[in-house]
Amino acid sequence: MAGNEAKTVVMITSPLEAEHAARIATAYPEQVEVIYRPDLMPAIRYLGDHGDPDWRRTPEQEREWHALLARADALLDFPQHEPRPLLELAPRLRWVQTTSAGVGPLVQRLGLANSDLVVTTASGIHAQPLAEFVFAALLYHSKELGRLQCEQQARQWHRFCGVELAGQTMAIVGPGRIGQEVVRIARAFRMRAVAMGRNADPERAAALGLDRLYGRDELHAMLAEADCLVVCAPQTTETDGLLGDAEFTALKPGAVFVNIGRGAIVDEAALARALEAGWIAFAALDVFQTEPLPADSPFWALPNVLINPHSASTVDTENRKLTDRFIANLGHFLRGEIDQMAPALDKRRGY
Amino acid sequence: MAGNEAKTVVMITSPLEAEHAARIATAYPEQVEVIYRPDLMPAIRYLGDHGDPDWRRTPEQEREWHALLARADALLDFPQHEPRPLLELAPRLRWVQTTSAGVGPLVQRLGLANSDLVVTTASGIHAQPLAEFVFAALLYHSKELGRLQCEQQARQWHRFCGVELAGQTMAIVGPGRIGQEVVRIARAFRMRAVAMGRNADPERAAALGLDRLYGRDELHAMLAEADCLVVCAPQTTETDGLLGDAEFTALKPGAVFVNIGRGAIVDEAALARALEAGWIAFAALDVFQTEPLPADSPFWALPNVLINPHSASTVDTENRKLTDRFIANLGHFLRGEIDQMAPALDKRRGY
Repeated sequence: MAGNEAKTVVMITSPLEAEHAARIATAYPEQVEVIYRPDLMPAIRYLGDHGDPDWRRTPEQEREWHALLARADALLDFPQHEPRPLLELAPRLRWVQTTSAGVGPLVQRLGLANSDLVVTTASGIHAQPLAEFVFAALLYHSKELGRLQCEQQARQWHRFCGVELAGQTMAIVGPGRIGQEVVRIARAFRMRAVAMGRNADPERAAALGLDRLYGRDELHAMLAEADCLVVCAPQTTETDGLLGDAEFTALKPGAVFVNIGRGAIVDEAALARALEAGWIAFAALDVFQTEPLPADSPFWALPNVLINPHSASTVDTENRKLTDRFIANLGHFLRGEIDQMAPALDKRRGY
Repeated sequence: MAGNEAKTVVMITSPLEAEHAARIATAYPEQVEVIYRPDLMPAIRYLGDHGDPDWRRTPEQEREWHALLARADALLDFPQHEPRPLLELAPRLRWVQTTSAGVGPLVQRLGLANSDLVVTTASGIHAQPLAEFVFAALLYHSKELGRLQCEQQARQWHRFCGVELAGQTMAIVGPGRIGQEVVRIARAFRMRAVAMGRNADPERAAALGLDRLYGRDELHAMLAEADCLVVCAPQTTETDGLLGDAEFTALKPGAVFVNIGRGAIVDEAALARALEAGWIAFAALDVFQTEPLPADSPFWALPNVLINPHSASTVDTENRKLTDRFIANLGHFLRGEIDQMAPALDKRRGY
């Protein structure tokens, strides 16, 4: 159809609730054709599900899927399990809006790091739920809720002395959008907040609401004063394996550890050792080197570990916010305002 | 000793760590004699313990204790289990500094409501740990930490969609010092905050950081919009039995209920019914009509209840803060600045 050829073709390539797809379809109906084919994607298991990684298309479905991809100018999400390079399958592709923030390693793996493809991410959308999970974990530990539930089952009433978050020092690796949200809430709890980041000048520390911003070479000094250590950094060549035996030993004894960044930032064997020794009192982990977490991981059985199956960022409001962002970016894309599309992945830095 | 007769006699009448007693003894050594007799009080079971209620003095200890009480001008805490009216046992007594905030009913019970005794309370000291417990409870429920721990034990990895505190409405009964701390943190979590209080004018609502302050006759309207209801009111004739079947039915279905005020504010049978029906999704209870909670209470076995043995306010910093306050008030007391002693119990209002 000649009329359609002039339209920008947008393809939704991971599961999205129909109401959000409808909003995208009606945002710029004269200029945009939206391809939304739930029948060619995994079923939605829960709100905000971006797709069962084990699901596969039939060969017939795969042919239809690739015929559609070949027409796409823009994608909402990177499609999974593609047999050939994305730009071969989708030669017209100029923009991908992702549904997660930490997509640097994925873009590298897809061979797109040096391409002209515009990649906008979900950075910021998950900041609130992830920050909430950080405090869920800290308060679960410091208010001894697990022990209280055990005592309740035994109908035991033992008064006790708890611990306050107030006055504790929270240390953050990676003070980006998530970290800033964590700092803001930590302040409300009257905690000190410090972080390690690329650019450690005092002005930036103040802008981030931090008591102190450590440089990258000062990681161990920061760890020594951390009552809790929160990793919200993206996975990059600089953060890969950042925290190992030496770092956990440098940590203040009895600290709490929370990882909502990426599993590859942590040497998991070293973390398990520190938890077994009680040097780290408690860890809450949302991300792992291998996901789903393998059945033989020591974390499953450690009594001082709380495992979240990489769902801390998933909340019922997520796809509404993501769709709002996609529609705003789509407007810029249609008007050629590429530099206003946000937040754009810096493919060199990887986040 | 004649020299001592001119001194103000301060008696510490509930367990206090020796370091804090020493600070009191050295604050005004020329003017004050401090009676600190751990051997005549229950042993300290945990930091901040104000005494095992089951402990009793021997008759010989009791005689010595009463001889000391007879000399006291001021007490740090109301002594427990006294066989005769306090002002008979301690005829010189002019001031009691309590170790808790909600002492209105106790002062009534002791027959001191119409006395000239100055009573200063711990109001404010427990605001921070109690507010922390409120968010521990809300986040435990909304982040499904109990379920996550069960799945972890079964080594199951099931991604899921959670709930955000952001955007929820928190409703507070009793926006005093504790409630204001709760509101401040709720704001950081990007929640709406409303409350019901005596004086519902918009200026006061703004000062408290509230989106809306309901009057006492508007309780049901407030309950209808509450995603979580937090009781931090003191027990008074106005709050006694305030929340019963009608109020829990008026509550938004699926709400979370937290009581850090006093047990007598709640009809416990009505609360148990609302929890069994699932109308209230989850309750965290720090206070009860009878404490310790009787073995036959339905709350022990309800899976959607978290019981705290009235220890949410007890943290390791408590007695340091309390001692600071006592020493400051003692200075005012010695200088006759009675109206500067704070916070004073309003014996008529009961808080």
